[in-house]
Amino acid sequence: MELKLKPNKIAIIADQNVLQLFPYYIDTLGFEAPIHIFSVLPGEQNKSIEEAVYLWQNLMENHFDKRSLIINFGGGMVSDLGGFVASTYQRGIPFINIPTTLLGMIDAAVGGKNAINLNGVKNVVGTVSLPEKVVIDTLFLKTLSPLQILDGFGEMLKYALIGNISLWNEIKGLGTIKSQDIKKEWIDWCVSFKEKIVQEDLYDKGLRHILNFGHTMGHAIEAYFMQKDRDEKKSFHTVSHGHAVALGMVMESYLSYHYGLLSQAAFEEIQTVLLRYYKNVIKNFPASQIKKIVEFCLLDKKNVNGRINITMLESIGKSSPNHFVSEEDCAEAIKQLFV
Amino acid sequence: MELKLKPNKIAIIADQNVLQLFPYYIDTLGFEAPIHIFSVLPGEQNKSIEEAVYLWQNLMENHFDKRSLIINFGGGMVSDLGGFVASTYQRGIPFINIPTTLLGMIDAAVGGKNAINLNGVKNVVGTVSLPEKVVIDTLFLKTLSPLQILDGFGEMLKYALIGNISLWNEIKGLGTIKSQDIKKEWIDWCVSFKEKIVQEDLYDKGLRHILNFGHTMGHAIEAYFMQKDRDEKKSFHTVSHGHAVALGMVMESYLSYHYGLLSQAAFEEIQTVLLRYYKNVIKNFPASQIKKIVEFCLLDKKNVNGRINITMLESIGKSSPNHFVSEEDCAEAIKQLFV
Repeated sequence: MELKLKPNKIAIIADQNVLQLFPYYIDTLGFEAPIHIFSVLPGEQNKSIEEAVYLWQNLMENHFDKRSLIINFGGGMVSDLGGFVASTYQRGIPFINIPTTLLGMIDAAVGGKNAINLNGVKNVVGTVSLPEKVVIDTLFLKTLSPLQILDGFGEMLKYALIGNISLWNEIKGLGTIKSQDIKKEWIDWCVSFKEKIVQEDLYDKGLRHILNFGHTMGHAIEAYFMQKDRDEKKSFHTVSHGHAVALGMVMESYLSYHYGLLSQAAFEEIQTVLLRYYKNVIKNFPASQIKKIVEFCLLDKKNVNGRINITMLESIGKSSPNHFVSEEDCAEAIKQLFV
Repeated sequence: MELKLKPNKIAIIADQNVLQLFPYYIDTLGFEAPIHIFSVLPGEQNKSIEEAVYLWQNLMENHFDKRSLIINFGGGMVSDLGGFVASTYQRGIPFINIPTTLLGMIDAAVGGKNAINLNGVKNVVGTVSLPEKVVIDTLFLKTLSPLQILDGFGEMLKYALIGNISLWNEIKGLGTIKSQDIKKEWIDWCVSFKEKIVQEDLYDKGLRHILNFGHTMGHAIEAYFMQKDRDEKKSFHTVSHGHAVALGMVMESYLSYHYGLLSQAAFEEIQTVLLRYYKNVIKNFPASQIKKIVEFCLLDKKNVNGRINITMLESIGKSSPNHFVSEEDCAEAIKQLFV
């Protein structure tokens, strides 16, 4: 691998499942330094402070220092956790990410946002610290479940909608998405688009908000169903993050149309494409619950003085961040989709 | 207080003792936002991950967010811990430091290095993240013990030696140091000098190393005695950080002279002044232990490929970072001081 740094030793923080599937992958990268492997169990519940302490302690016991390198090898959970550990160990040592999910490749592993969860609150403790490099290898895509592919594909549709109409036109007509349908060049475009945005606004003060298109209402949908799942003691998630954000994109496209930025034709095209893939997870949604979802919208971190902040579309491929919408209009956007 | 930010709420992370001594101090700063107080016990042993988790949880439970402010009110332990917590909560929220020790005012609270200890290793987990502001109030100095004053004064002598011969000439002749002897203008000069260096080299890649004058050998002395104290099950520290660094400055001045950078007269002046204040803590040092201290020098984070890295003086008030010295010469520097 081409890397300016010559590490004195390397720690691989790896998803245990990925390690079993690709035990020799790291050998192919051609590192000369001694390698230590620290495996972690996948799953959001392991993106924890206990796991971070376990990793810091292992780094200490094995005398890792500022000339060492950490490689995060797995999905978004691994790059979030490993990036947080690397960026705080000895106040920050270099790390690279090797994402193994589509969502990791085009989103989680890129852009420097690292975090752990605490007391069930997602990403509440973390840092903003860029990896030295992100290695994209589509080899890993074939190991993903259809749900994992769809989760990543939703994020790819988001990139197309906020910044690339050609990509949108190329991917909007795909039928069932299989890993072999995902072209490397699409992934590369998403990564370089995100990197460009992040370069201009690393600390998420304004422009970077466009990457949150679909996420204000998507997070509210996700939070609502997580709460519902907990209340009903379900052992699975009714709606995954990627699916919730896809539905959030339909709703925020509706608001873009409703506020006069986006044409009706464009909104309807977006709605048709996204619902083809993502509607089926939510059925028979009771109108009475809309108020609760709006309440979750009101908790969003991007809001200012209690006003709900979303990214809007001006057209397919052209986004505009930091628009404020009323609670009533949010409720309307949910209603037109679900009821 | 003049502050651009208008926080929606404020968390004071405060040393319990300081809070008892100055219960109304924060009120005098004129903040309008609601204030929550989280007190911590002083002492390096409480600069821990458990304490960080306790603070993160309190911030979460009280709905702190990116528009909130954290005020770290206490010595270096508080600004190290509180800065780490603030710079990682929601990936970083604003904080200001109100240092209450001399060492805190001129060193720990300034420059953005935050950290906690883990498994007895100092500052092994942390961030580099600048406070919005550092409030210097000499009111607090009168609460300090003579040892605390001396610890801070050692750091002040360091600033004079690396960057300000006039300050050196003003303070070198003081007898017993009392808090009322410490002039605000000296503190202000140290703070602005450190801020200037940090602005040029926030991440400690080169120039900032001059702030470590005395610290390579000083840390080795400190680590040696900490180990000895543990082995002998002592409940106190034979040598404090500030005292160890003062002795480190004598030794590194000796090396500067030995390597031909510093004049003999300047070295002898430095030695005379520093030993007046700092020698008495170490008596009857056995020559047989010198090798162990050199071994600690070899563990220093600034070393490159096992070579010991120190900052040298070219003259009083003029420093030069990143010189490499041999183990034999380090041993010689210790010997000429202690044996």
